Amino acid sequence: MTRGRSAAAILAGAVLFSSGAARAAEPAAGVRGKVRAYRAAHEKEIVGELTDLLALPNVATRVADVEKNADRLTEMLRRRGFEVRRLAAAPGTPPAVLGDLRVPGAKRTVVFYAHYDGQPVGQKGWLSGPFKPVVRTGPLGEGVKEVDLAKVQGPLNPEWRIYARSASDDKAPIVALLTALDALRASGIQPSVNLKLFLEGEEEQGSTHLTEILRQNLDLLKADAWILCDGPVHPTRRMQVYYGARGVAGLELTVYGPLRPLHSGHYGNWAPNPAVTLAHLVASLRDEEGKILIPGFHDDVRPLTAAEKRAVAAMPPVEEGLRDELALGRTEGSGARLQERLMAPALNVRGLRSAEVGEGAANAIPTEAQVSIDFRLVPDQTPQKVRDRVESFLRAEGWTLVAEAPDRETRRTHPKVARVAWSLDYPAARTDMSLPVSRAVAAVVDRAVGGSAVQVPMLGGSVPMYLFTETLKVPVIGVPIVNHDNNQHGINENLRLQNLWDGIEVFAGLMGELGW
Amino acid sequence: MTRGRSAAAILAGAVLFSSGAARAAEPAAGVRGKVRAYRAAHEKEIVGELTDLLALPNVATRVADVEKNADRLTEMLRRRGFEVRRLAAAPGTPPAVLGDLRVPGAKRTVVFYAHYDGQPVGQKGWLSGPFKPVVRTGPLGEGVKEVDLAKVQGPLNPEWRIYARSASDDKAPIVALLTALDALRASGIQPSVNLKLFLEGEEEQGSTHLTEILRQNLDLLKADAWILCDGPVHPTRRMQVYYGARGVAGLELTVYGPLRPLHSGHYGNWAPNPAVTLAHLVASLRDEEGKILIPGFHDDVRPLTAAEKRAVAAMPPVEEGLRDELALGRTEGSGARLQERLMAPALNVRGLRSAEVGEGAANAIPTEAQVSIDFRLVPDQTPQKVRDRVESFLRAEGWTLVAEAPDRETRRTHPKVARVAWSLDYPAARTDMSLPVSRAVAAVVDRAVGGSAVQVPMLGGSVPMYLFTETLKVPVIGVPIVNHDNNQHGINENLRLQNLWDGIEVFAGLMGELGW
Repeated sequence: MTRGRSAAAILAGAVLFSSGAARAAEPAAGVRGKVRAYRAAHEKEIVGELTDLLALPNVATRVADVEKNADRLTEMLRRRGFEVRRLAAAPGTPPAVLGDLRVPGAKRTVVFYAHYDGQPVGQKGWLSGPFKPVVRTGPLGEGVKEVDLAKVQGPLNPEWRIYARSASDDKAPIVALLTALDALRASGIQPSVNLKLFLEGEEEQGSTHLTEILRQNLDLLKADAWILCDGPVHPTRRMQVYYGARGVAGLELTVYGPLRPLHSGHYGNWAPNPAVTLAHLVASLRDEEGKILIPGFHDDVRPLTAAEKRAVAAMPPVEEGLRDELALGRTEGSGARLQERLMAPALNVRGLRSAEVGEGAANAIPTEAQVSIDFRLVPDQTPQKVRDRVESFLRAEGWTLVAEAPDRETRRTHPKVARVAWSLDYPAARTDMSLPVSRAVAAVVDRAVGGSAVQVPMLGGSVPMYLFTETLKVPVIGVPIVNHDNNQHGINENLRLQNLWDGIEVFAGLMGELGW
Repeated sequence: MTRGRSAAAILAGAVLFSSGAARAAEPAAGVRGKVRAYRAAHEKEIVGELTDLLALPNVATRVADVEKNADRLTEMLRRRGFEVRRLAAAPGTPPAVLGDLRVPGAKRTVVFYAHYDGQPVGQKGWLSGPFKPVVRTGPLGEGVKEVDLAKVQGPLNPEWRIYARSASDDKAPIVALLTALDALRASGIQPSVNLKLFLEGEEEQGSTHLTEILRQNLDLLKADAWILCDGPVHPTRRMQVYYGARGVAGLELTVYGPLRPLHSGHYGNWAPNPAVTLAHLVASLRDEEGKILIPGFHDDVRPLTAAEKRAVAAMPPVEEGLRDELALGRTEGSGARLQERLMAPALNVRGLRSAEVGEGAANAIPTEAQVSIDFRLVPDQTPQKVRDRVESFLRAEGWTLVAEAPDRETRRTHPKVARVAWSLDYPAARTDMSLPVSRAVAAVVDRAVGGSAVQVPMLGGSVPMYLFTETLKVPVIGVPIVNHDNNQHGINENLRLQNLWDGIEVFAGLMGELGW
């Protein structure tokens, strides 16, 4: 799941206030019971298949490495009877691997999405090589030890973790999917749907060719639903199902004062101060409760359905824990719950910069001031509409907008000049939770976890789900399985075995019981 | 004139849109004519006395160097019949040199203030040693050449410049004062007032001991007026007389968000964004026209007198030139003139800082945001009252104010926490332009320049005139003489000869004709 490295580092470990109990050996009925028994009998074998895959370097900028992973996946899929194709937008670009398994009599076709490429590994601090998978007795910390699996008798401790690049993000779901199929077959259970596995090879490089691959293969990828297996479970360690993700748009705004820094005593109060202007501009965009003040900004916001409202209300209470953990003396939104706030569009100020503060500050009027903003979009906003509304608002406020640093003449002849630079943006996507497929997935996952998963109508973060919904016009639902504290994108990325075990059961449920 | 090095660099060369004509050889009547004739006959001698003084290193942190300057000044003063005292606050601190010259029958006593210490010279780029005075044919640039005075016959070109540390700031006025006295005596004119020269030795180090020196010597320093000879003439090159200077106060304000940077997608709209909070805070302090919105802030502002209003209206029109030079598309104050704006208190934002902007920006909620502010104070505001009003306002707005970075518990239990750090501050001072002494000084200077000097009721910048007005309860008026483009505090500091010649005439007028 790509969020940019720094964002991932921010997310990792940001929330951990329930340690979650391992549910190792409890008895389970039906499909779940059979799959669990299969897994218990094949633990080392399953871990072995995963660690073999993890031993293959998979940074997407090295296409030759990616090809080796694709070869291995092809072999793993063929061994299970999949018809396998490589889908590349052009020669020399990382291919997606598509496995196709028709099931006699199945009416529905479901595509499971995962990616097999991984983040770069350049950072220092790996305790073992990123492509030399190692099992340890838990999360890194005092007393954690390496485990020699060859010497282990009996069941593996489910709190043990596999350390390697992509252990969680995102090779574990691939092995969980294949093992789920193995378990179903060993139990004599035929899948309830036609299965396709779509394994992307450059997700961590921004999925540059994904849209093209999808467009070139509309027929091959025809399906009734896509299930995304990327991302972590809920920070409470409960399984979660998500139906959408917000979009994103980046904006850098720069406003200008005098050409040179000016002595504030001799020119202040007369030569315009760009830092003050910027403060007023930012305050005019958003209030302190998070409300976006740009006229029309909320016009395109699709109202929440009753089901989505219910799901928001039913989210695990994380607010008090977060307030303590993050030392928040207040929250925005007049006391609304976190998830409720994540269902709305958001304007976040990423940073402010004008001249210097503290020791370095001079008694001077700065020459310019800059604000960095990220917008989070919700259905049915589009980046283009957001850009239009923001720019219309600024123009109505008297701003002359320019794309590059304005020249002297532009600054001299316009009262208020702002440089506007938009960056990476894409729209939100949200699958209706009330659709039959949505309810079917939720029900199967609940059954597979023997309780209830957290139902997330829409992730606050941005995942390009729209690529699938817009290109393929298909419902997309996210069912992630890996531990939230997996150090994704960072050093010592890891996978907790219990999450792998749980994932096998959930995926087996989705393959063996899904129907609508 | 101390303004801090960076501020000085900002001011230097900030305004130059009239080159000013040299008024070298025109005939002049009365005192002025006699003084001019004396100067014309002694140009090399005058320059020689100044360059000899400039050859003495004078950085105030080196007290031994300062002492050597004091010795030289003592000798220069005694030669002219002054009674000389050294006034030091304590042994080992830079002394002020006080010269006292009683004039039989004079009713008034006037103290002329200058300082003989200089800014540090560490910066690279001096074309000749800072303490090896050199005469060049003009300001540095193409075609400028060194002049060997020994080989010059006839009058010196008044556009030539002397290059050395303190050439302008502030040894030139000392030599101009003494030469003015020489010229009066050579012309048989007796000073009209008792003269005291107060020559400070650590102005460029913040005048740390000045108040103490003044307090310890109230009787010795008793006078009817002080004339400050520090600082440059008006940027149009016209002589100026100033009657006050604004005070100053620095403020660093830091506000806080979550303890750690948080993923803006997953926590934005809920965890408070400190950069947004700061923008609203800044906007609540000041509007875009410069108006300070803090309740009661203007309560202590002393209204302008009719004379001050007239002087403001009569200031040379610099606005259009500045707008062009600085590429200003608008000005603050709804079109008011620059000097009018400088008569009011001001709140300048020196800088803003929160997380990163541009390439370095992460999609995250910052942990804190900081604004750096300088206030300019006018009579009768005091730094204490300003602090009180700002802090009362912030508290009324719901802020909890702390002096040090707040701990986790403070942040957790208070909705809005701001760290407040005040720095260097002192009050304004403004001598009433309608006082007899003020009118007398203005008239004499006008006569000495053969026209009208620029009358500045109060400098926009901050000069600690209050030290004299508050400690000594005496009218203080500024009559600076050196060129505005003198590179003061920077490299290649210089003095334009015409400014030295003009200064001699002005000071001779003040010594020989002042009376009220």
